This record gives sequence, C-alpha cells and structure tokens, in this order.
Amino acid sequence: MQVLSSPTEVAALSLNMRRLGKRVAFVPTMGALHAGHLALIEAAKRHGDWVVVSIFVNPTQFGPAEDFGRYPRPLEADRQTCEAGGVDLLFTPSREDVYAPDHSVYVVEGNLTRGLCGPHRPGHFRGVLTVVAILLNIALPDVAIFGQKDAQQARLIQRMVRDLRMATRILIAPTVREQDGLALSSRNQYLTEEERCRACVLSEALRLAESCYAAGDRDAVQVCARMRARCEAVVPASAVEYIEAVDFEGLAPVTTLADGTLLALCVRVGKTRLIDNVILGRPHMAAAYGLLA
Amino acid sequence: MQVLSSPTEVAALSLNMRRLGKRVAFVPTMGALHAGHLALIEAAKRHGDWVVVSIFVNPTQFGPAEDFGRYPRPLEADRQTCEAGGVDLLFTPSREDVYAPDHSVYVVEGNLTRGLCGPHRPGHFRGVLTVVAILLNIALPDVAIFGQKDAQQARLIQRMVRDLRMATRILIAPTVREQDGLALSSRNQYLTEEERCRACVLSEALRLAESCYAAGDRDAVQVCARMRARCEAVVPASAVEYIEAVDFEGLAPVTTLADGTLLALCVRVGKTRLIDNVILGRPHMAAAYGLLA
Repeated sequence: MQVLSSPTEVAALSLNMRRLGKRVAFVPTMGALHAGHLALIEAAKRHGDWVVVSIFVNPTQFGPAEDFGRYPRPLEADRQTCEAGGVDLLFTPSREDVYAPDHSVYVVEGNLTRGLCGPHRPGHFRGVLTVVAILLNIALPDVAIFGQKDAQQARLIQRMVRDLRMATRILIAPTVREQDGLALSSRNQYLTEEERCRACVLSEALRLAESCYAAGDRDAVQVCARMRARCEAVVPASAVEYIEAVDFEGLAPVTTLADGTLLALCVRVGKTRLIDNVILGRPHMAAAYGLLA
Repeated sequence: MQVLSSPTEVAALSLNMRRLGKRVAFVPTMGALHAGHLALIEAAKRHGDWVVVSIFVNPTQFGPAEDFGRYPRPLEADRQTCEAGGVDLLFTPSREDVYAPDHSVYVVEGNLTRGLCGPHRPGHFRGVLTVVAILLNIALPDVAIFGQKDAQQARLIQRMVRDLRMATRILIAPTVREQDGLALSSRNQYLTEEERCRACVLSEALRLAESCYAAGDRDAVQVCARMRARCEAVVPASAVEYIEAVDFEGLAPVTTLADGTLLALCVRVGKTRLIDNVILGRPHMAAAYGLLA
C-alpha cells in the first residue's frame, strides 16, 4: 500500500491508473476507521480495480462549537486497517494540502440542505461538498463510496455530481450496526457506558417505524410521533434534535410514507450528537440511487 | 467542424481526444461572436491540438432586471465564424442540457467578488462560476481561454480552478479594441451612434491612468479621481458605476499603484452597461497569471 499526502502525486497516479484501464474506486473518510469504513472499502474493491482511501479531518465542515479539535485521529491504526483491508493508496493530505491560506471558493446547495442536519449545522454541508469536490478532483475516481449512515450527505454528493457534471458515480453502502442495532460511528467512542446503552434508542425507533410501515401504517406524522415517544422514554425531549420523514430524491418532507421515504433522526445522548436513518422499501430504490446491498 | 448539443457526447469525444494524446483547448462563450472571441479561438489553437467552443447564454448569471431576454443570439453567423476560425467542435447545449429542472448546486466565492462588478450584480458570479465548472467538467480541457475584458471573471475562474483542484489551466487573452480604443463586447451593438462616440470614454480614462503611472504617479485615489473626472465630462456622475484600483491577485483595493494593479471601471452609456480595465505592468505579470501577449 502506498501512502501519499501530495495531491499532485495522487492525481498523477490516479490518472495513470485510469490510462492503464483500471477502474479507480475512492473512499473519502475522516479516519478513526471502524467496521463501517471497512464495508465501504470492501464495496470499493468490488466496484474498482484500484482502491484509494483518503483520511482528512476536514475543518470546514465543523461548526465553531463542534468537535473538530477532539475528533479522534488514530493515524497509525488507520494505516494498518487500510493495509489489512487491501487498500492500494492511502491519501493523507494536510490542511495546507487541501486548502490554500486564501481559499475562497465553496460548493453550496440550496434545497436538499433545508431539512434534517442542514438547519442544525450551518455551514456543515458547504464544507462537506467543497472538500468532496476537491477530493474527487484530485483522486479522479470512476466510483466513490459513501455510507448510508450519513444519508443526507450521500444524497447531496450525488446531487453535486449530477449538477456539476462530475465524472464519478456515487454509490451508497448500507449502514453497519453493532449487534444491538447502534449504527457504527467514530463518535460512538465519546459515549460513556451508560450513554452507550441509551444510544440504542435511535435504531430502536427506526425499527419501530419499519414495523409500522410493514403493518400498513402510512401516516408520516403519526409514525414520527411514535418514534419521538420512544426516544423521549430514554432522553429528554430537548435532546431529540429532529425526527423527519422525507423523500430520498429531494429530501423534502412527506406526509405519507412510501417506498423511497427516508426516515431520519438525530438525538443527543449526553453531549454526543448521534444520527441514524432507514430508507423504506430500500431494495426497490437500489438501482436509482446506487444503494448497495 | 462538428456541432453537438449533448454534454454526454462532448464529454466522450473530449476524453477520447485526450486519450489520443491531443491537448484540448476550450473557449466558453455566450455567442454573438466578434473579433475578441476570434482572438480567444486563435489563442486556443496555439495552446491546444483540438479546439472546443461553447455557445450558451447562461440564464443564472443574469439578474432579473438584466438583458438575458434581449442578449443577441445570432447562432448561424456564430457557427460560420467558428467554422472559418478553425474550431473543431462547437458545443451548443440547451438550457435543459446544462441545468436539470431541480438544479440546486452552485459554486460561490466570498472574497474576490467583494468589489468591482460583485456588489452591482448580485448572483452574477455565482452563475458564472457554476456554469464554467459545469462546462469544464463536460469539455475536460487541458486549457481554457478567457478574455481580459472580463478581468474579474477570469481571475475568479483561476481561483475556482485552484481551490477546487480542477485539472484545467486558465489563460487570459488581451482585450481586443476598436481603432478608437473601445473594447469589443457583444453589448456594444446596443449602443446608438451617439452613445457609441461617448463609449470611448472608458478606454480614454484607462489610457489617462496608464500615462499617469508611466509618469511616476502612484497615488491610486488621485488617479481614480482623474479617471472619474474624465468620465463625468461625458456621462452623468450617476452613470459611473465604479472606478477601482485593486491588486490582480486578490482583487482587493490598493492605495498605491504598482505593477499588477488592475484598474477597472464600469460606466453606463445610455442604458448599456460597459466595463473595461488595464493591468499595470502587464508584461511582468504574464507568467504568474497566464496572461497571453
């Protein structure tokens, strides 16, 4: 496995791989790699001949009161994970490698960012879209893999790639969960033992919603209310940042549940902000949205 | 000369040209081609093996009170101009070819847009950067040529390409002028005969400023005041939208003139908004900013 921090070298290498007829598959990450990231790497290996993973804790997607400073950065463990996972190139740019001191150009989106995490994390998706545009332009991949755990992010990146006509296909890998249902996240390590127990409430609320849908319930307001009640049995009402039912295409609120509805929630457990989601009728939506099995 | 409106076909063709080892040179235009555009095409031929010209009157860069509707669209004459000029591919996308009905992603810049045309045309540069990002991603050129007449636009596009790590070199061709100094512009055809005479005042004011600089005057405020006086001899004070001295690197105001200072002005002659500029010590700045001779 090669390890490079120079964007110029990565771009040259990737371009050369494409010239040799190899399909380049890319997994951008913020490091602190866990089994969820490994599943993205596995998907990249299935969809490409040459797998690039980037590790970059992107400052522009953190708000001033957020956890940029304490975000975990176990670089040597991450390097070993990538090596063992069969990654071909690990790209570890510094802040200066990605952003010039007078960087002033951003990619913004005005529609799919209106709900879910958008209003709660002003500037977050501007930072995400900008860094992903930069990383895609450096790595020049045929495909890039993102996790469904960050569903709004993944859908926004698909929209960016479509609207700006970037030549990369965006695939979305399913969320990897602990046995008790908790979605894997680098931020789970912030949780105390007691909080770790309560954190299950997100996936429990989503399973409850899926049961309602399977039983024929189509009323989004009612189902979201039941999810909320489930959460508020475990955390204070003020800790439930949002519970929303939106269509996956445009992330606009829906009143009637249907295949393609994204049910998503954000709950703060202690000081840790956790998100999770499901897409109803996911298998039927797979082809249209590059949702991997 | 091929003429295509499909972005997919243009992208495939261009990628193939690059695979064959040809250097792709691109000239994005809004049509109504004149000798200024022909100079861009000539420059493209010098810097590339395969020349693509696009004609697209981009709706997102016009304000609601601006001239999108009446902007000239002499497509057949433009086609002949391109053919005679030795263009290899003329790309004429429709609005729908460029923007999906639910297009929602934009490229924005927060610093170089603060002065000059920025405050006077809200949303204009967002539209310009977005469409140029789209066109560059479609045409995938090695180099793209822009005219110095729109100096702020050209500099912004250089900044976008740098910040988003797009793989195209942006070259800036010198402004082409009528014998009496008027910078060529598709909008000159809006001028009545009488307005056409008064329109010379922009280039006259710039020549005056260059004389001051050549004579050793370094006081930007004083030189801009002299330019203003020259303009106000011909048009009402309210018709002078701006006269500014900025550094070409960051387009920030300067108080002392130096090599690399951009002197730029915008004057409305009748109802027609005209812009023009010079870069002081231009030959010394050529290598750093891709300024063509």
